[in-house]
Amino acid sequence: MKLVGIIAEYNPFHNGHLYQIQQVRNVYKDAIIVVAMSGNFLQRGEPAIVDKWVRAKQALTNGADVILEVPAVASVQPADRFAENGVRILSDFGCEELFFGAEHADYDFMDYAKLVQKIDSSAFARKDKSYAQEFQEAIAKKIGHYVDQPNDVLGLAYAKANLKFESRLKLHPIQRNVANYHDQELLANTTIASATAIRKKMLAGLSSDIETYVPSYKDMFDEVFVSWDSFWPYLRYKLITADVNYLENIYGMNEGIQYRMKQKANELPINSSFDDWLRAVKSKRFTYTRLTRLATYVLLDISKAEVDSYLKSPYSRLLGFTEQGQRTLNFSKKMRTLPVLSKISQKDKDTFYSTDYKVGKVYQLVNKKEQDLKRSPLRMI
Amino acid sequence: MKLVGIIAEYNPFHNGHLYQIQQVRNVYKDAIIVVAMSGNFLQRGEPAIVDKWVRAKQALTNGADVILEVPAVASVQPADRFAENGVRILSDFGCEELFFGAEHADYDFMDYAKLVQKIDSSAFARKDKSYAQEFQEAIAKKIGHYVDQPNDVLGLAYAKANLKFESRLKLHPIQRNVANYHDQELLANTTIASATAIRKKMLAGLSSDIETYVPSYKDMFDEVFVSWDSFWPYLRYKLITADVNYLENIYGMNEGIQYRMKQKANELPINSSFDDWLRAVKSKRFTYTRLTRLATYVLLDISKAEVDSYLKSPYSRLLGFTEQGQRTLNFSKKMRTLPVLSKISQKDKDTFYSTDYKVGKVYQLVNKKEQDLKRSPLRMI
Repeated sequence: MKLVGIIAEYNPFHNGHLYQIQQVRNVYKDAIIVVAMSGNFLQRGEPAIVDKWVRAKQALTNGADVILEVPAVASVQPADRFAENGVRILSDFGCEELFFGAEHADYDFMDYAKLVQKIDSSAFARKDKSYAQEFQEAIAKKIGHYVDQPNDVLGLAYAKANLKFESRLKLHPIQRNVANYHDQELLANTTIASATAIRKKMLAGLSSDIETYVPSYKDMFDEVFVSWDSFWPYLRYKLITADVNYLENIYGMNEGIQYRMKQKANELPINSSFDDWLRAVKSKRFTYTRLTRLATYVLLDISKAEVDSYLKSPYSRLLGFTEQGQRTLNFSKKMRTLPVLSKISQKDKDTFYSTDYKVGKVYQLVNKKEQDLKRSPLRMI
Repeated sequence: MKLVGIIAEYNPFHNGHLYQIQQVRNVYKDAIIVVAMSGNFLQRGEPAIVDKWVRAKQALTNGADVILEVPAVASVQPADRFAENGVRILSDFGCEELFFGAEHADYDFMDYAKLVQKIDSSAFARKDKSYAQEFQEAIAKKIGHYVDQPNDVLGLAYAKANLKFESRLKLHPIQRNVANYHDQELLANTTIASATAIRKKMLAGLSSDIETYVPSYKDMFDEVFVSWDSFWPYLRYKLITADVNYLENIYGMNEGIQYRMKQKANELPINSSFDDWLRAVKSKRFTYTRLTRLATYVLLDISKAEVDSYLKSPYSRLLGFTEQGQRTLNFSKKMRTLPVLSKISQKDKDTFYSTDYKVGKVYQLVNKKEQDLKRSPLRMI
């Protein structure tokens, strides 16, 4: 039994993702494809446009075999930590290889990782550059060129995680050739578009335009499409009412940025959008992505202690599986060291699962569907 | 110069309030009528249907001379404390008499207050009764009959406050004869209706029906009508995300009710209303009013320390005045011991005014109008 892993967000699942799954099948016809998928809040600090159940279903309908949810505290993270959690979960589940898209599939990511490991980030001066910028420059110095395309960066992060956890995951980059991650518009003459462009159309209510790019499009028919705009009133309310000392305990908060976040929430005109707020808070010392992640942690009211608690005893949640996927569940169980939750009990929600339960409840304020309790894994059999 | 005080909420200002002002003029033709008015959150724990500025304007247009805002931490209070703050502010401002509506204007409230002063509430057993119930029974025992109509209860509270602060306010009850406080429907053949019935029509969008009952009706034309339903998503979000230990520090929180409040916010169906939640949280030990007040404090995120801080150094805010009212401002200034704020500076909002500023910002999330900064008192001259 060959288990192949993919780390994904599927926001939403589109033909580019389908293509990636087909690439796996081209190499290993009978592979069981296990996806470590972000739940309802994503790596770059934004809510998923449709919930984790819909996205899991789309993936299972289109060739994935097992979907494991990575909780928000592990997903909403810079590339390195995001990668670490995905690699850990997939490796522990029994995956032997990790397939991922890369702008440069010819890079030797494992080799790069060994070089990068030697960078001492404590020496960064950080006067007028972000941490990410300084790190990029140090990498370029070590490797001889920048590794700065979004998927390449993730590839390098997977490799570093592999080293860190002495994981046996073999890396398998797939050359990306059409849509760039940040493309804002749909391109003509192709069925592959960036998730960004697809979301833009969905949020504008132009659903019929996206059928070309999204398989199992009908799974999203009855869904509320969620964005930061949906959560902005809640974030603003939280920033208005929470004390700055309280905000200081939110995960990722530092350098006193909570003062600025609160001040702008108070002082911007009442009809300001999330983007207006973000632009107002932005400074040289913080990238937009760092700020949106921080905004997510404020929205979800997640403390440093809550993240630490997860990182000390990580787990994943089984969102669904196919018949083929089902066979792995017992098979891999013997070797696993990390829990794979299949149902959330009343007791779980009051104990170790309380942060995820809270995250689900917040998402549900907009999406209107129970996310956790009484939800069993999808069985696509 | 004869200063007469009224303690009011004007939610909204209607013909019953106009009648009360006319009653004052019948007794003292040239009286300067000073109103201690609740701001944007009211005694029974609910948001005002239109903001404090609109309500102040309505009152000034209809015979009041000076409107002093009583902050939320002093307004959102049981009758006794609500009365204490109103009495203190008006008495300190130089008022000699207090006019108020009562279901029984013939009661000798000051005399009752002296009897009631002797009740030892620490002896209440409170097994299956609310504090309010026990207190009512103790009053009945002392006085010989219940004093349980809403305006009579307030009248008694004014009298008690008078004793407590050795205030020189002479009480002047006015017989109420038409709409009962809790009337849900508008009555035919009268131009006086309960504020409850008027709000119900306003929220149902039937504005033309209320012209009969509300003077200066056009002042409300462009307003967003605010209710608990408007704030329920925010309250629910707060209850979902705040830790129970954090909630325990909210003013008025006790007996562990925060667990139940949070639990119901989490577990009720997603489309539940504020009223559904209230009914679910309700128990014998808590009256509905106590719960809505508590809900207001949670919504506004007001700690015990914030309320204590106000009660130690109370103040009021000047929302507006007529030409006649203006003359009192300097006149009474010499005698006053409590500050009367007329403008809020950037510094004020970061210091002693921070709680009120926060309250205004929360109200503004729904009402969409700046409530504090850069707002000067209305001059109806």
